[in-house]
Parts: sequence; structure tokens; C-alpha cells
Amino acid sequence: MAQALRLAHRGINTTHPNPRVGCVLVIDEQVIAEGWHVKTGESHAEIVALQQATITQGATAYVTLEPCCHQGRTGACTSALINAGIKRVVVAMRDPFPEVAGRGIEILREAGVQVDVGLMQEEAIRLNTGFVKRLTTGYPWVRSKIACSLDGRTAAGNGESKWITSDLSRQDVQQWRARSSAIMTGIGTVIADDPSLNVRHKTLSDDAFQQPLRVVLDSTLRMKPSARMLALPGRTLIFTTRGEPHCMQALRDAGATVVVQQGEKESLDLQEVLSYLAKKESMNEILLEAGATLNGAFMEAGYIDEFLIYMAPSFMGGDARGLFNTSHIESLSDQVKLQINEVRQLGSDIRIRAFPCRNNEVA
Amino acid sequence: MAQALRLAHRGINTTHPNPRVGCVLVIDEQVIAEGWHVKTGESHAEIVALQQATITQGATAYVTLEPCCHQGRTGACTSALINAGIKRVVVAMRDPFPEVAGRGIEILREAGVQVDVGLMQEEAIRLNTGFVKRLTTGYPWVRSKIACSLDGRTAAGNGESKWITSDLSRQDVQQWRARSSAIMTGIGTVIADDPSLNVRHKTLSDDAFQQPLRVVLDSTLRMKPSARMLALPGRTLIFTTRGEPHCMQALRDAGATVVVQQGEKESLDLQEVLSYLAKKESMNEILLEAGATLNGAFMEAGYIDEFLIYMAPSFMGGDARGLFNTSHIESLSDQVKLQINEVRQLGSDIRIRAFPCRNNEVA
Repeated sequence: MAQALRLAHRGINTTHPNPRVGCVLVIDEQVIAEGWHVKTGESHAEIVALQQATITQGATAYVTLEPCCHQGRTGACTSALINAGIKRVVVAMRDPFPEVAGRGIEILREAGVQVDVGLMQEEAIRLNTGFVKRLTTGYPWVRSKIACSLDGRTAAGNGESKWITSDLSRQDVQQWRARSSAIMTGIGTVIADDPSLNVRHKTLSDDAFQQPLRVVLDSTLRMKPSARMLALPGRTLIFTTRGEPHCMQALRDAGATVVVQQGEKESLDLQEVLSYLAKKESMNEILLEAGATLNGAFMEAGYIDEFLIYMAPSFMGGDARGLFNTSHIESLSDQVKLQINEVRQLGSDIRIRAFPCRNNEVA
Repeated sequence: MAQALRLAHRGINTTHPNPRVGCVLVIDEQVIAEGWHVKTGESHAEIVALQQATITQGATAYVTLEPCCHQGRTGACTSALINAGIKRVVVAMRDPFPEVAGRGIEILREAGVQVDVGLMQEEAIRLNTGFVKRLTTGYPWVRSKIACSLDGRTAAGNGESKWITSDLSRQDVQQWRARSSAIMTGIGTVIADDPSLNVRHKTLSDDAFQQPLRVVLDSTLRMKPSARMLALPGRTLIFTTRGEPHCMQALRDAGATVVVQQGEKESLDLQEVLSYLAKKESMNEILLEAGATLNGAFMEAGYIDEFLIYMAPSFMGGDARGLFNTSHIESLSDQVKLQINEVRQLGSDIRIRAFPCRNNEVA
């Protein structure tokens, strides 16, 4: 199963909106074939592996996700496994996709195939954290990327903020962008930096994946049609609550999709934004690269699932800008508790991955 | 030499104001004796090792610091080595102490002993960083200990700050206190927390060391004679620029030493404070455990040699208090550059050791 997970990981940047899945076929403890899902519309991992094998009769299949039982674009994997004479299927986790959701396992068992579920389940869930969250909750996985100094500052007192962290950290960010379904920011960042919000990395070829969707939260529609990102490959989605029709048209002419939230409020309903991205756009993992205002709003609302923090070896002092503008944290009991899962030195920087403790579930 | 350094390290909490020194005697690649300096007034490492050995004729001595050549309280080590018939002395570093400073090596060579200098010199200097700094510059090594949240905040917006970090981190701090010659703080912290500023650790017995000197910077002499630390074992030194004579007398009656800085200024001259501590009190390593004001002042003046940062897994938000109150850092080019030497997960916290890059000597 570890090998199947490694294979699945090869699709990390390309399977969106599908899950990353790997499959290994074994006869007499010998691996006879391997497969992984590359991208939507192409074969599922099980099919790739089956096609590779010469003999499949009596084999055991290790699959990181429950085989599909719906016809879909590529045919049901359950039928393929049964027809190939597979004797036993070991599944890391059930597929949360409503048309499968245990039915794949049932079909295999009804056909006399032994099915074991749960081997390396945690690792399998982690690999598809966004896919699982979207299908089980209706919201995407939100990963907030923060670049700051060692004293928790993102920009100097005068506003300067470019290239705080090292080249190695910025390259690392590109990997996280590449695996994301979308990269999201606020209009403040767009106006200040005119960012590209795309994947630029030597080792990632353009054929290998689609550029992630770019999402700009822009309640009063201040985005300019001349914004750099609109001229780049890939889609840009702008959320707003209002806006002059001709501004909207100009942005649409420049290639953007503009979504207008209805309602009384001037500010965007962030929950609705996330729900839209999951349900209408099938977004699994979202990389939030925002300033203190938007990050603070998402953080206080509890909408961030993971923090990816790059700390540069410097102090910016008390007048520099903090990580989060917050309005509800006053005392120690209000602080947002985290679990730090990984700390790594990345060149001269430190990279920290931390997860919020929800309802004190993680102490 | 590595073994000699390990032996020297056993005196980490007790040799003050002397350096930590270790010695290993070797004949035919066999260790025949070991010694380390325990505390002032007791034998030097070389003497301890020589006393342990039955045969010393023709042996090689590995010493972490140049042997002393002045009579002192315990007799010159050079004479003892020569009289014992030691053939070769390997020295990690020269002694910066003015009465030795190369003269120990000369005397040994004049007596026909082969002397090699520089093996593991860096490690030897690091072991006695405070001693070396005091004797070469006239100032102590200042290590600033900071406990903060992951977003660089030391206290909530309402001022609450107790027990931000975990029990494991607080135990670790005790080890750093124990090895320090002094623990320094500002009057603001004393008034807010009434701290003990002493070493409290199960594994450190009271006999093993003297409590470090407590230093309070209190320009307007607001310290109360009832402050908790004054009732505890160990000395307390208060720096002030003025103060009512009867306040001063009350503090002296409570056991404190009060040092009054002369001059026009209302605030303390920090450089003078450090100079006093090195020259009048022979302080090697000082642990600064201060709030944002004092830490900011020391940091901006470039008086901090090392930062020891404990980060708790939480966010305190934008209204919480930062690490440094600063007045001269405005743009990115003003930021204080550091080198991060060590990052460690300590229970649920992270501990970071960082050193300022002086004059860009470390890029």
C-alpha cells in the first residue's frame, strides 16, 4: 500500500478535481503491475495497472481509494477488477464520492472478491485531504500560506514586503501552488503587488498540469482589467458584492469570471465563497495567499484548515505589519490553538506546518 | 578533544566566573585520566586529571583551554604539566585571560613540551562564549529568551501572558538560567509578574551551583522591597538613575545592591550596565528575560548576542503584544538580519536559536 500511495502521489499536481489514486497488483508477493491516475478523463489507477499486467487471474490489488462502480468516463473499475479475476482487493479508504461511498466494496464482495478496508487509511486521507473535505462537508480544504519574519511580521512599517523569504522558500511555494486547485487572494494584495498567482517552476512543465484557478475576493470590484494575472494562462474568478456593470463587463472582456454575491452586506460572505468554490467549481485544495485582513477574517471564522508558514531569519520590529488583523481575540483564552506537525529548515528560513485544533479535539 | 569538551561541559552551571575546562590524559592512544574544572577555588581540569593518573611520564594532555601559568589560587597548571613529564599538550584555544594569553603555551614550549593549538577551537569557544566575550570585549554575552505565539506575540491584548509555552519549554528555560551568570529583566516585568528569576529544576540540586545574579533595570527605582525575588537565595542588583534615598535604603535593607548611574539622562545607559556587569561583577553569560520595551532597546542597540525563542502553537492575533518595541526600523533594509542555527520541536512548542548577523559578517 505504501507503494500504491507513492504512485498516487505522482498525480499530485494533475488529477484535480479527481482524487490522487494509486494501484499495485501482486501475485505471490511479487508486484506484477502498477498504475496511477494521471488526470480527469484518463484511466483510473486500477485500469492502468490491469492493462500493464499479462496475467491478472488470482492477483491481489492494493488500491489507495475504493474502486469506482459508476460508469463515468472510463468505465467502472469494479467490473474491470472482477473481469480480470482479481481475488482480493485491499482498499486504504472508502470513496466519499456519493455514487461510490461503499457501493464499490459491496459490488466486489457480491462478486466473491475478498475486500479489506483501512490499511494506511490516514495516509490515504491526507493525500486527498481537499477531495475528502469537499465531498464530506461541501467546502474546500483551505491552506493559508504566510511568509513572515521571525517576529511574525509580513511587511515593514512602510509597507515593503517583497522577497522577505529566501529563493528556496519561494520555490517551495511553487510546489504548493501546483498541487492546489485554486490560489486565492484579496484585492488589497492585487492592488499592492499585481501578483501573477500562477505556477512558475523549472521542474514543472506546462503540459503536466492546468494552472490553478485564480480567485480574487474584491467586494467593491476595484480589480483592473489590466491586472497582470488576467493576461496569463488559466482562469481568474472574481467575487464581488456589487460593481458598475461596465467595470464588470471590462473584466469579463479581459477573461475573468465575475461572481456577484447577492445580499445587503458590503463585505463578502466568506462561507458562501468557499461553498461556491467547492460546489460550482469542484475545488479541492485552495492556497490562500492573502494579507493580514483577509487572513485574519478567515482565521477568526475558523475557515483555515492548515497554515504553511515560511519564517525568514530577521526581525522587523514593533511597527511592522502582523500576520492577522483580528477583532475577536482579546485574552489568552481566545487565542487560536494549533498543532505543529512539521518544522523544517529551508535554506536560511524555517517552514512550519500547523493545523488548528478544532473544538479542542487536538490538545 | 571531544571527550575533553564533554568533560568541560559538566561544569556548565558551576564554574562561573571561571571558564568551563576539561582535560584528558592519553598514553599510547589509551585514556589514562580525565578531569574537569568544577568551580572557582577548586582544582583546574589539568590538576584533577594529573592527580587521577598513576603514570604521567610521556603522556599527551588534551585540554580545552590553554593551561594557566599564573599562580592563582590553585597553582600554575603549566608547572604541574611540566613536572608530571607530559610530552605533548593539545590545546583547543588560547586563554583570553590577560595573565595567560599565550604565555602558558610559551612556557610549555620553553620547557620542551610539544604544544599544538586549535583542535576543535570553535566548539571550545562556543562552550565559553560568555567568558571569551567578557575578556576580549569587556561586555558579557547577552542571550535574550523570548516566549511567544507562532504569530510573534508575547501577551494577549488585555496583557495576559503567563504560561504561554509548555511545561517542557519552561523546564528547558531553567537549564539556560542555570548556566547563566545573571538573569536580567526590566522593572515593568517585575511589577507585572513579580517573578522569582531563580533556578528551579528537579535535576539541578542547590549544592551544584550558586543562584545566578538577578539584575533589574529600574531607572526610576519603582522596585518594592517586598518583591518576591529579594526574599530568595542569591543576590539582586538594581540599576537606577535616581531614587529617593529612603527607597534605596529600604531596598538595600531587603538585601538588594543598588547601583546608581550618574548623568543627566532619565533612562539607563544600557552599554554602561553591560560594562558594569562584565567588569565589576565578572558576568559571562546573561539571560535577558524582558518585555518588548527592554528587548526592543537592547535589540536595536545591537547588544543581544543570541536569541532563544520558544514558540507556542497558537495565534494571538493583531491586537496582542509584539516581541519588540522599536523606534528605528521602518523599511525592509532596516530589519535585523539573523542566522538561525537550531530549530527544535520541544513538546508542542518550537525552540529556535538565532544569532544576529553583525555588519553582514554572516549573510
